[in-house]
Amino acid sequence: MKVTVGISAHHLHVTKEDLEILFGKGHELTVHKKINQPGQYASTDFVTIRTEKSELAHIRILGPVRKYTQVELSKTDYIKLGLDAPVRESGDVKGSAKVTIIGPKGMIERDAGIIATRHIHVPEEDAKKLGLENVPYVSVRVPGQKGGVMYHVSVRVAPNSYYEMHIDTDDANAFQIKNGEELEIYKDITE
Amino acid sequence: MKVTVGISAHHLHVTKEDLEILFGKGHELTVHKKINQPGQYASTDFVTIRTEKSELAHIRILGPVRKYTQVELSKTDYIKLGLDAPVRESGDVKGSAKVTIIGPKGMIERDAGIIATRHIHVPEEDAKKLGLENVPYVSVRVPGQKGGVMYHVSVRVAPNSYYEMHIDTDDANAFQIKNGEELEIYKDITE
Repeated sequence: MKVTVGISAHHLHVTKEDLEILFGKGHELTVHKKINQPGQYASTDFVTIRTEKSELAHIRILGPVRKYTQVELSKTDYIKLGLDAPVRESGDVKGSAKVTIIGPKGMIERDAGIIATRHIHVPEEDAKKLGLENVPYVSVRVPGQKGGVMYHVSVRVAPNSYYEMHIDTDDANAFQIKNGEELEIYKDITE
Repeated sequence: MKVTVGISAHHLHVTKEDLEILFGKGHELTVHKKINQPGQYASTDFVTIRTEKSELAHIRILGPVRKYTQVELSKTDYIKLGLDAPVRESGDVKGSAKVTIIGPKGMIERDAGIIATRHIHVPEEDAKKLGLENVPYVSVRVPGQKGGVMYHVSVRVAPNSYYEMHIDTDDANAFQIKNGEELEIYKDITE
């Protein structure tokens, strides 16, 4: 069974309240470019993530606003920042890495820094047909000279979602995976 | 069968001639710190790798001088520099990525940029005992939340070598491998 890969560059999600602290009262996100997941988009707004050791500028906010503020960077990014961040599912930010987020109008400090799990979005209506109903994790095989297998790729079944695998830039660069590449899912290869 | 991992940060090797162009006539490398491979060391000298798009400063020269100049960066580094570099065995630099190397006394342009293959150094005298005689590639399994399998890990049998697996920072960060971690080798898992 195949799945198309989308590579997620580092980005963040913000609450309405945090967006207004960072960009000013009444500020709203503007669509720069829609992404494949329905209703979601890359916005035109960027922030800087700063630590005592270093900083990362030009980190894009993905919209729309969410119920939690979450910063998704790669391990390579966190090493540069001198932070130790956990590998987590989206939304599971409690006790994650403390980051300082700087916008043009204000700055916030939040326990919001995670490394996102490798995951596959599965539309609820297709889960059974794809054999991915009640399957929490699968393995995904990568061909090529830097190929291999990724274990623990989480399966996220949800209504109104687009069938696609998401990986971060560390996985993309280590395995030399291209955006839009098709990879093979294995339910029988487990750790 | 287990092997200990050493994570190679980006670095370069230089010829005696190129070292003298970069650092001045008669310049010799000084040992900063020995590495596990006998006779080899991190030197006290650094260069900058520059492209039209960007630059990477503070890239360390590994000694002693070699018969070829070779720059070993990660895919993440090459993306930053705007370069496309091949995955190669050490020494196989012909037709690799063209890089500009800048030292305190001079600058050179060489087809020298590679992404090093994942590899295992095997002492010639232990190859048979380890079952790694005449085995060009093995697979290596990585445990943990970002775990998986690396295919095509090349086996380099040579006299006077130290039994150790070398990976670059992209593989280390994607798989969350720590320096000095022990991983399992599989000869029966192939692509």
